[in-house]
Amino acid sequence: MPLIRIDAVEGRSDAEVKLILGTTHSAVLAAFGVHLRDRYQVYTPHPKANMVIWDTGLEIPRTDQFLLFTVFSKQRTEALKVRLYEELTQRLQSAASIAPSDVMVCIIENSAADWSFGNGEPQFLTGKLS
Amino acid sequence: MPLIRIDAVEGRSDAEVKLILGTTHSAVLAAFGVHLRDRYQVYTPHPKANMVIWDTGLEIPRTDQFLLFTVFSKQRTEALKVRLYEELTQRLQSAASIAPSDVMVCIIENSAADWSFGNGEPQFLTGKLS
Amino acid sequence: MPLIRIDAVEGRSDAEVKLILGTTHSAVLAAFGVHLRDRYQVYTPHPKANMVIWDTGLEIPRTDQFLLFTVFSKQRTEALKVRLYEELTQRLQSAASIAPSDVMVCIIENSAADWSFGNGEPQFLTGKLS
Repeated sequence: MPLIRIDAVEGRSDAEVKLILGTTHSAVLAAFGVHLRDRYQVYTPHPKANMVIWDTGLEIPRTDQFLLFTVFSKQRTEALKVRLYEELTQRLQSAASIAPSDVMVCIIENSAADWSFGNGEPQFLTGKLS
Repeated sequence: MPLIRIDAVEGRSDAEVKLILGTTHSAVLAAFGVHLRDRYQVYTPHPKANMVIWDTGLEIPRTDQFLLFTVFSKQRTEALKVRLYEELTQRLQSAASIAPSDVMVCIIENSAADWSFGNGEPQFLTGKLS
Repeated sequence: MPLIRIDAVEGRSDAEVKLILGTTHSAVLAAFGVHLRDRYQVYTPHPKANMVIWDTGLEIPRTDQFLLFTVFSKQRTEALKVRLYEELTQRLQSAASIAPSDVMVCIIENSAADWSFGNGEPQFLTGKLS
């Protein structure tokens, strides 16, 4: 946790996807300070015609490199969320030459009882995770 | 914002998808009164065997035209949500001959700090959006 | 409701998907006691390179049989959620030989006004559902 879904325009190689997923994980570690093995990622490529991403008038240019991050997480402070946006954009630019204007993030929060990471257990309730 | 995911049975042409996405955007504009360029849409076609959509006993018939809308949005009033359901079904029926019985919507709300539309900025916190 | 998304590594036959979806529905019925026809499921297979699922140090082994459940639901008690985790893992193991260590669940809650199951109506507000 967080669980991160990444939607993108199709066309990347496995190696490019691997770089994006690894860079995303490094940003989550830096921003949220989670466990090194706290990594849950699903990358979904889409035909270009199936994604329409504009900018609410913010004049943010989009290219086919665009990445939409949907982040499912327990509650985090505003400061941590802002840190995530910064780490993600900086690291994706450095490591994968993805422009900050091509990175959009939407966070959805839930609670301790809402996660089971396996074995039918609610690990945040049983105290295995905190 | 909202960010809208649409899941459907596979088989539509790009032109049909374009019509659905455009009609969906017109419904969002009419219901929520958002900025003309507030458009964030991802359409995902699925093999028929991978979607099972029933009706909780409401006797709502489903066809292969079925559309599932998952809408991620900041908080909206009940009245605005109901308006969205009405605009979506009416406009999809008029523009794309999709029956209102084939339109399901699930809304998930979040908060101002949960959005970055690009550039690593939380635009609802910095005041660029309100 | 709930609306359940299942993400998995690609490679299952339609019959295998059908078994997983049917078993999932039986778990939801047992755990939440919902209407028999309260079934809304989307199964999405992914190339192996596009899913990275670790374990937050919990030493939970993952295989290509792994299933990620994202459950969108109105509010449920902690007890009901724990029951869902137990029913899902037990039934998937029994019926489909999927190890409990390969079952992860993330629940996202919303409210009565956030659902329209068809016809442009908010069925939890109009009293058709409760």
